[in-house]
Amino acid sequence: MKIVIINKLLKETHKELIRKTAADIGGSLLFVDSEDEITPEFEDCEVIYGFGMKNASKNKNLKWLSVPSAGVDYLFKPGVFANEECLITNSSGAYGVTIAEHIICVSLMMMRKIDHAYQESVNGNWSAPVKQHSLKDCRILVLGTGDIGCCFAKRARAFEPACITGVSRTGKCSDTSFDVMKKVDELDSLLPDTDLLVMSLPDTPDTRDILSASRIAMLPEGAYVVNVGRGSAIDEKALAESLNEGRLGGAALDVFKTEPLPEDCFLWKTRNLIITPHIAGNLTLDHTLNKNVRMFCDNLENYGRGLPLNNLIDKNKQY
Amino acid sequence: MKIVIINKLLKETHKELIRKTAADIGGSLLFVDSEDEITPEFEDCEVIYGFGMKNASKNKNLKWLSVPSAGVDYLFKPGVFANEECLITNSSGAYGVTIAEHIICVSLMMMRKIDHAYQESVNGNWSAPVKQHSLKDCRILVLGTGDIGCCFAKRARAFEPACITGVSRTGKCSDTSFDVMKKVDELDSLLPDTDLLVMSLPDTPDTRDILSASRIAMLPEGAYVVNVGRGSAIDEKALAESLNEGRLGGAALDVFKTEPLPEDCFLWKTRNLIITPHIAGNLTLDHTLNKNVRMFCDNLENYGRGLPLNNLIDKNKQY
Repeated sequence: MKIVIINKLLKETHKELIRKTAADIGGSLLFVDSEDEITPEFEDCEVIYGFGMKNASKNKNLKWLSVPSAGVDYLFKPGVFANEECLITNSSGAYGVTIAEHIICVSLMMMRKIDHAYQESVNGNWSAPVKQHSLKDCRILVLGTGDIGCCFAKRARAFEPACITGVSRTGKCSDTSFDVMKKVDELDSLLPDTDLLVMSLPDTPDTRDILSASRIAMLPEGAYVVNVGRGSAIDEKALAESLNEGRLGGAALDVFKTEPLPEDCFLWKTRNLIITPHIAGNLTLDHTLNKNVRMFCDNLENYGRGLPLNNLIDKNKQY
Repeated sequence: MKIVIINKLLKETHKELIRKTAADIGGSLLFVDSEDEITPEFEDCEVIYGFGMKNASKNKNLKWLSVPSAGVDYLFKPGVFANEECLITNSSGAYGVTIAEHIICVSLMMMRKIDHAYQESVNGNWSAPVKQHSLKDCRILVLGTGDIGCCFAKRARAFEPACITGVSRTGKCSDTSFDVMKKVDELDSLLPDTDLLVMSLPDTPDTRDILSASRIAMLPEGAYVVNVGRGSAIDEKALAESLNEGRLGGAALDVFKTEPLPEDCFLWKTRNLIITPHIAGNLTLDHTLNKNVRMFCDNLENYGRGLPLNNLIDKNKQY
């Protein structure tokens, strides 16, 4: 069984763990920093862990693609897989901790106006105090209650918010961090009572522009929006208008319809908008990389033993 | 009993609560936005709630000064009180929530390098991912375990740090948010095992320059420092050197030896330093103002009934 690992950030300890697991199931390994370095011998590999879409598009022998990301939207385009039966797993579960920290950080930056004070200080100005808001007594709505939403809710709880409401397709969540769970078709009735809206949704046909212009208008004046899922979920033009008018208190976007954000995009100049370059969850944090590799090794053992894979993507739901 | 309230941020609800309490104990009230507006009739007042230092310096009749701040260092200079027997109370307990949020926010900004990414985005640049650190598995040392340190520890706990060690004069704390409590004379042995040092100390003769050049050198490479107590606690020159050399990972200072920070201060240009203009705890946050007023009213009732005052400052300890 030929296994290709594509990841330039792996350390020797990660490689050692992967080697040990591969040896247990009789796999032969190739480590490369990028997909272009795959040797001819491994071009017909059975398993790839990493972003191996070029290989997947021509390798009919590829049976399992394990991607280190949580989102998999980029795999649902025509022609991605030469073998349409190829299994896909993602790394959902590796990003909850890091993205939750990002959400807490940017929420507090906005609500406490630290973004503006910091910006002033970079320019050498000691700015005057302004009105601040707090996670304390805040009404939080979490749209998308997967690993990321749950890890965030668990941390947000310690700040004594008024309530944390979770919203998912089913209206259910096994995690106990939410005060109440609601179905996504109740969203319109929840938005008017939301001070902080946190969005951690995958990109699927159902989630595109879910935060539409009309829903943005349902949020109360001064509300804050954070998006760490996929940029497709928000009507960016309508959000920018609401921010520029001063109706919303602020927004923090880590994901965008087009990434990197084009140089001439109107979002760069939008008022009270914190832009971060898709850094809420990436493998430059040790915890995330370690967990990502451990999850792959667990799954490689499953694969080798013919057991069901964890994090298997449902190609109909697209997540 | 003449009572002067100096606070331009008070809303009608706050005034109503104060009026009701004053009526209960037979007090007559004057509300002013600033000390300069005190009328001749109230110049010999018995009680001031607010920053009333000019009056205190000449009013021999002043028996109780209740300041809305937690720090009281500015009251221990010669000539502040015409009546040396004047009681002083502070508002410790009103600031824990807001300052804890500040500490979490700036810690995450530094550790996750959001400060740099945000700064790039303000200039229209989509920056590349860099190495990040996390509160997860972080070894946190909290120097000063009063209300602020405890509120922070309680929130930090939710981020799953490796350990939270509290350090106080006595080595004791009634709060259970710390994994372990140590005496301040053990500080030198604790610093080498600290990833994040949080300082929330009052300004007293014992705390001045407590984070000296030699102690800064005891912190491990890449450690982070947050100060929300008083600027006097840190050797600012030594800290800046360590940051500019890249030995420390970062620092976030909300308090300084001189405030506002002078225009030509070397700190403005120090590398990996987040400067905020003493905004971690102020009355522009509703929760803080509400609690501050409630605490004063509770104490005014105590005062009127001859009961001991809460938050009475020990003039020997100066806190």
